[in-house]
Amino acid sequence: MKEKRRLDALCHLESDYNNGAHEWVLRYMLETNDERTQSYGDDRFSEKARELIRKACAAPEAQIWFLAGGTQTNATIIDCALQPYEGVVCADTAHINVHEAGAVEFTGHKVITLPAKEGKLETTMLRDYLAAYFADETAEHMVRPGMVYITFPTELGTLYTASELTALHDICREYGLLLYVDGARLAYGLAASKDVTLPKLAQLADIFYIGGTKCGALCGEAVVFPKGNAPGHMLSRIKRHGALLAKSRVVGVQFEALFQPCGKAPLYLAIGHNAVALAMQLRRLFVEDLGYQPFIDSPTNQQFYIIPNTDLDRLRQHIGFEVWCPVDAEHTACRFVTSWATTEQDIISLGEIATI
Amino acid sequence: MKEKRRLDALCHLESDYNNGAHEWVLRYMLETNDERTQSYGDDRFSEKARELIRKACAAPEAQIWFLAGGTQTNATIIDCALQPYEGVVCADTAHINVHEAGAVEFTGHKVITLPAKEGKLETTMLRDYLAAYFADETAEHMVRPGMVYITFPTELGTLYTASELTALHDICREYGLLLYVDGARLAYGLAASKDVTLPKLAQLADIFYIGGTKCGALCGEAVVFPKGNAPGHMLSRIKRHGALLAKSRVVGVQFEALFQPCGKAPLYLAIGHNAVALAMQLRRLFVEDLGYQPFIDSPTNQQFYIIPNTDLDRLRQHIGFEVWCPVDAEHTACRFVTSWATTEQDIISLGEIATI
Amino acid sequence: MKEKRRLDALCHLESDYNNGAHEWVLRYMLETNDERTQSYGDDRFSEKARELIRKACAAPEAQIWFLAGGTQTNATIIDCALQPYEGVVCADTAHINVHEAGAVEFTGHKVITLPAKEGKLETTMLRDYLAAYFADETAEHMVRPGMVYITFPTELGTLYTASELTALHDICREYGLLLYVDGARLAYGLAASKDVTLPKLAQLADIFYIGGTKCGALCGEAVVFPKGNAPGHMLSRIKRHGALLAKSRVVGVQFEALFQPCGKAPLYLAIGHNAVALAMQLRRLFVEDLGYQPFIDSPTNQQFYIIPNTDLDRLRQHIGFEVWCPVDAEHTACRFVTSWATTEQDIISLGEIATI
Amino acid sequence: MKEKRRLDALCHLESDYNNGAHEWVLRYMLETNDERTQSYGDDRFSEKARELIRKACAAPEAQIWFLAGGTQTNATIIDCALQPYEGVVCADTAHINVHEAGAVEFTGHKVITLPAKEGKLETTMLRDYLAAYFADETAEHMVRPGMVYITFPTELGTLYTASELTALHDICREYGLLLYVDGARLAYGLAASKDVTLPKLAQLADIFYIGGTKCGALCGEAVVFPKGNAPGHMLSRIKRHGALLAKSRVVGVQFEALFQPCGKAPLYLAIGHNAVALAMQLRRLFVEDLGYQPFIDSPTNQQFYIIPNTDLDRLRQHIGFEVWCPVDAEHTACRFVTSWATTEQDIISLGEIATI
Repeated sequence: MKEKRRLDALCHLESDYNNGAHEWVLRYMLETNDERTQSYGDDRFSEKARELIRKACAAPEAQIWFLAGGTQTNATIIDCALQPYEGVVCADTAHINVHEAGAVEFTGHKVITLPAKEGKLETTMLRDYLAAYFADETAEHMVRPGMVYITFPTELGTLYTASELTALHDICREYGLLLYVDGARLAYGLAASKDVTLPKLAQLADIFYIGGTKCGALCGEAVVFPKGNAPGHMLSRIKRHGALLAKSRVVGVQFEALFQPCGKAPLYLAIGHNAVALAMQLRRLFVEDLGYQPFIDSPTNQQFYIIPNTDLDRLRQHIGFEVWCPVDAEHTACRFVTSWATTEQDIISLGEIATI
Repeated sequence: MKEKRRLDALCHLESDYNNGAHEWVLRYMLETNDERTQSYGDDRFSEKARELIRKACAAPEAQIWFLAGGTQTNATIIDCALQPYEGVVCADTAHINVHEAGAVEFTGHKVITLPAKEGKLETTMLRDYLAAYFADETAEHMVRPGMVYITFPTELGTLYTASELTALHDICREYGLLLYVDGARLAYGLAASKDVTLPKLAQLADIFYIGGTKCGALCGEAVVFPKGNAPGHMLSRIKRHGALLAKSRVVGVQFEALFQPCGKAPLYLAIGHNAVALAMQLRRLFVEDLGYQPFIDSPTNQQFYIIPNTDLDRLRQHIGFEVWCPVDAEHTACRFVTSWATTEQDIISLGEIATI
Repeated sequence: MKEKRRLDALCHLESDYNNGAHEWVLRYMLETNDERTQSYGDDRFSEKARELIRKACAAPEAQIWFLAGGTQTNATIIDCALQPYEGVVCADTAHINVHEAGAVEFTGHKVITLPAKEGKLETTMLRDYLAAYFADETAEHMVRPGMVYITFPTELGTLYTASELTALHDICREYGLLLYVDGARLAYGLAASKDVTLPKLAQLADIFYIGGTKCGALCGEAVVFPKGNAPGHMLSRIKRHGALLAKSRVVGVQFEALFQPCGKAPLYLAIGHNAVALAMQLRRLFVEDLGYQPFIDSPTNQQFYIIPNTDLDRLRQHIGFEVWCPVDAEHTACRFVTSWATTEQDIISLGEIATI
Repeated sequence: MKEKRRLDALCHLESDYNNGAHEWVLRYMLETNDERTQSYGDDRFSEKARELIRKACAAPEAQIWFLAGGTQTNATIIDCALQPYEGVVCADTAHINVHEAGAVEFTGHKVITLPAKEGKLETTMLRDYLAAYFADETAEHMVRPGMVYITFPTELGTLYTASELTALHDICREYGLLLYVDGARLAYGLAASKDVTLPKLAQLADIFYIGGTKCGALCGEAVVFPKGNAPGHMLSRIKRHGALLAKSRVVGVQFEALFQPCGKAPLYLAIGHNAVALAMQLRRLFVEDLGYQPFIDSPTNQQFYIIPNTDLDRLRQHIGFEVWCPVDAEHTACRFVTSWATTEQDIISLGEIATI
């Protein structure tokens, strides 16, 4: 079993969800355990977490719900926000199109794909598609695009710039679509971006979610409707999707901890910065010391390198990582993921591989 | 805000999900936090928890999945187990019929109801219904009953005896239906039952779930297919319902803790015994000392009493509880719920109310 | 095969869909066959039929769609008109609850039932249910009632009076529900009613459908939103349900024929009158001449009588009819249905049975 | 209104569903109108039509259902035949992907697309996709391909050869997928194909449908499971999709007529031959006389030509046709469709345009 072996590795870079929770999260869970609270989202931890998130997003009107996981969040929110006859437009590499086992289609909506460029949805391509759709005489026989879905960072670790996000936002406005940002790894995206911040996101996106599971929590994602623009009856809608937690404090407590100040910024941002700094250290090691080529130029915590097949076994003895895809007969693209749980020592110890 | 007030009460008996997690659960979470594990159900905690549950159920072939919450579990499992054209039969008071916001219907299946008797599905009524359905010439135009759903304990705290379960099991066999037991509060049901045990349940039910959220965990339910009888491709099916946890250890760790031995039995059973013992103490207080009538004769942790309306406000100052339904112009049925988190001191302090 | 035998009977009263089409319908189909038309509802026959229906309903703003069959119409229209988290309230004997194989639930909506009285939904019971729902603190966890569904005539041939319809309309207004009337057999209902007319229906119902299949057409039902109150994008919504006919003229032509004047009223109403008159003749025969008791007092084309079991075989040799349900050990309720295709001679020939 | 103008044209080549029914169909409907029959598919016309189709397909075991329209048929049958977690693979130009308003996704299944080549699904591309899917370690997180959907003829009028169909069949067998053929225009495909016949189709496809609406009927499609391989409870499944016709004779009668012998072959095939012969006549006119280039080389009743934009208005005065897509700034691809209702005189009269 390949995976089993990895667990003995020096350094675990398989994913950002192979660890427990950030210590602050766990500690706060412990501290508050004896307290009795209300349920179904009305507990005081969820309330406080909402307040902190609204502040971090500079979005005082924001409506926020806490769900348990990423696929659940995407399927529930996309279904809640779309009209029944609408579909969601995304890059063909998007998580909802590839790795969610058809959860969006399960709710009755088409996932409409456009070819991705480095994991991103290109604005030109989107505009052309929308212009063609709305000009088509048979448009009413085709699924109406009701939402644009992007991931930030993308499945390939890449990022939209603020101006790209603005362009997407403008196109969405022009054609009457919602812009939804899947932030499963948002902490790492914000840390690496030069110009996208939580307030910027809250300004440009109609809906986004702040990922917890991959960014320091045991579970949980925070869905934000930044302009108080959620559809009515969200509690019923969420419950109908099986996504309403009775003991909602379990996620509320974690997000309250994640949005506690850590220095000047919330812990959530600090978590991202640390992981991205280590990812850059990893990049120097791989590119400069080991001489590997990047498979894609990712500024975030997911790093992709082209590894000679002859090196794969040796690497596997020291690092846990994921095979991404074959590049040619002799090379394989592999993914190495840092997270809040990665330490500087992890990366340093990897340096020693170079000399083995 | 009525709920707000309750939180200052001496004693919180509103529900069994207004607390955190049992200390063993939290402690084990803490101890294992630094360990790296696999994901999507393959982590070693989930594996170990499965092993412990199989043993406790005397069901070595059992297939077990861990999901996050109760409504999610019901909707996902019912949809996975039924044929598309089948419906699920239950008492009209059943949770899936009343308080799940239509989550089962969202998956495309009819909830077929029969009148409940003290919260239970009567075997005679079930048999009559099935006999009539299968004798009907137009049966193919009606939703085919494919599963019987019961709760153990029921929404009214009542329990099926082993012989009642056996009768339901036999009817299901006779007509080719699955018997599914919702064990959201299973710990309390097992503690109170004279003759239903985990192995008995594993023998009589085709599918059941062991509730975590209401029985000591922060979140999580364990679905058991005791005879290895799960449909194929469960991982895909569960993910498609948005119910697959990436960081599956979050539930695995908790169930491993809940099924650690505590004395001779797993902690899970001890939790139930304690809560039920306190519920019986509460009953003595209410019936003997305070002179209230039971609304229904519940042997489990949910207790229902008929309270004179003139007493409601005074009680509310001391206890958190839930108004259930009006009984007559002057009386209201109220629900008082003990849990693993209720202490003997809680109940003793209530005794003082009698004298106020 | 019981059904096979019926086909040799003197008189076929099994159902109102065991015949072809009214001769006017077929003749008009023939006359217009060579004409080229547009499709998907834009053909000139559909347009003309809409115009005639608007006039007959005194509803100049009415939006009208033509679908192929009754179950399709119910499932499509209920799903289109409800919010995703809403359910539809009806009598427990309602067609959508019993004989549509779960087509409404297939679209994700709960069918919420109240006990029927003679096939009808009682206003008192409806009001009590709605008052209780909206007063319930946990209402958001329960499926929200979004529509009342009634059949006119009911599955038992009975009719709501204009004042009963008005009461249902008023309750719906009060609580914000839509009132939807399934008129699969509307022609027969209008013919038998003392005070309900098409304009009255258009005034009181938010949506209703004028049944074609059982009232003279080969197939097809006309859905009417009398106040121009259809949700947007109906063409897409209908197509998504697989209910949009490419060659829409097939239904358009039939409804144009059915709403041609026949004397002073449209043919559709004449069809109903004829069938009801024969049903009343049948009633005299059964009650006065043969001495059978009505099972229910139906003024419309569906007649139900209590037949001694010893008479069943003899009757079956002469009449095609449907066994409804056992009444007691010695009697069975049977259904006898007249239609536009029943002739006076059919009923007269039955009279001869009495003397056999 | 562009469409409106077309209706005055000399020759209507907009579509193959802008006409009524073939005269034999209508005549048989007339002849049989007075006969009483059973319903829900058990009428004697449907039975007889099934028999004729089984014979024409040399598939004595075939199970056959009659539905009302094409999108309905696709959505119903795909949903019935797939497991819940499976999707359907098709060319990106496929009708189910483009022009069915998301009806397949409405039933919860993903439409998985591969780039089309001249409207067809390439076997190499399909094999590569399937090999990659089943080799992928994360396959269970992706929608499992359960069926291949092709159209015969395609949306661009092209045809698979018998050997291409055999290759698709073999790949499907190898990977455990069903092969489903949408034959909305099957009559025209069979007429134009050199080597695909009904028996061949019945041998290679797991499921196919024989289109009625576009091939001589007023409405109706015949779904064939050639090896008696339909899933159980089809009546319930079809009704649940709202696709069961009560008065099933309406389609049964038409298919009985369409499969009556006309010379040595069924009328259905003769209808196709006539339309294809006229399409070839049209091709000579357009290519040889008018000097237009084909947009795609279609051997069937849908013909596509590249028309200089400066000719469009003039053409529109004489012919009804459909604008397909722009080719370049000065040319537009247009579709011209013959059908059973097109006459030789129609095409001859077009010849005169050349000289206008």
